[in-house]
Amino acid sequence: MNEAPAEIEALIEMMAKLPGLGPRSARRAVLHLIAKRGQLMTPLSEAMGAVAASARECLNCGNISSGDICGICDSEKRATGEICVVGDVADLWAMERAGVFKGRYHVLGGMLSALDAIGPDELRIPKLIDRVATEGIEEVILALDATVDGQTTAHYIADALEGRCRVTSLAQGVPVGGELDYLDDGTISAALRARKSV
Amino acid sequence: MNEAPAEIEALIEMMAKLPGLGPRSARRAVLHLIAKRGQLMTPLSEAMGAVAASARECLNCGNISSGDICGICDSEKRATGEICVVGDVADLWAMERAGVFKGRYHVLGGMLSALDAIGPDELRIPKLIDRVATEGIEEVILALDATVDGQTTAHYIADALEGRCRVTSLAQGVPVGGELDYLDDGTISAALRARKSV
Repeated sequence: MNEAPAEIEALIEMMAKLPGLGPRSARRAVLHLIAKRGQLMTPLSEAMGAVAASARECLNCGNISSGDICGICDSEKRATGEICVVGDVADLWAMERAGVFKGRYHVLGGMLSALDAIGPDELRIPKLIDRVATEGIEEVILALDATVDGQTTAHYIADALEGRCRVTSLAQGVPVGGELDYLDDGTISAALRARKSV
Repeated sequence: MNEAPAEIEALIEMMAKLPGLGPRSARRAVLHLIAKRGQLMTPLSEAMGAVAASARECLNCGNISSGDICGICDSEKRATGEICVVGDVADLWAMERAGVFKGRYHVLGGMLSALDAIGPDELRIPKLIDRVATEGIEEVILALDATVDGQTTAHYIADALEGRCRVTSLAQGVPVGGELDYLDDGTISAALRARKSV
């Protein structure tokens, strides 16, 4: 079904591999790009090439960076003795958007998973233990997904760091703006167990 | 809220301008691209640059092409004396996917619209009249959206071509696989008016 010239079909096929785009929306996106090839398509292609050439993982924390060490690890202001452990860079960005954590991060690059055969050495866990020892870390905050894999990973890290520093994790409970009626049972029982005096 | 390096933020902003992607899904797409920068991001950037440099509108029909004249206008096999008039290139591709029309196309580049001040000269209508005169066209098939603007455009073209060639339009009726219960009133009454003996 090649209705477009071959190089456009190839472009559509690549665009369709992006998360959130299927073959049909990739086609629409490419038509939009071609219609705006001066204002959008050429700059986008150049920006993408530049990022592809410069982006790499921070050698210290695994964050995306244009140098060997990312801006957060490089900033003296963020040497607070706290490390926030996150699953991936999207989680790091979510924490940064919230704008309340002032320390440094450590990006694991996934979660422990028996099913997918992901063990501690596939993740950045040895490097975390190393950082706790060398950076004078007092507290490691686990900001991991509240899923089975996330909680398994949290337990593993808490065990591995036992006696080396304080290990905490994000609180579980009712989300801000959340209505009890729409919450699942697990969240309600977690919130009840972690109840606080008013 | 700049949680990513500036050039990555700029890339996310451009990606978010694509139809079907918002700021959040653009962010996800860019993270995916960075994770696969070797296999996907560099080739995609190059393919996009190549298409941006080569893609243009066919001087004859308005289809997207890598040369001055598109593959369909250039193909001798498609000189059937029939022109199918479509609104945009996405519609042309949809017709080609159906695979039943063997003639050539004419892409209007939009619909007449009083509200948006789009008249015949903003569209490729004068060129269509010109082609009917010079290419020995016997039939113009209007494959335009069944919207108010689409039908206005169809009437305008039918008037302009009166006496020069046969002008037909796509049939309206029950779509294949359609259930009457779910069809809107307009479709049912159009299908009833265009009823055929069995």
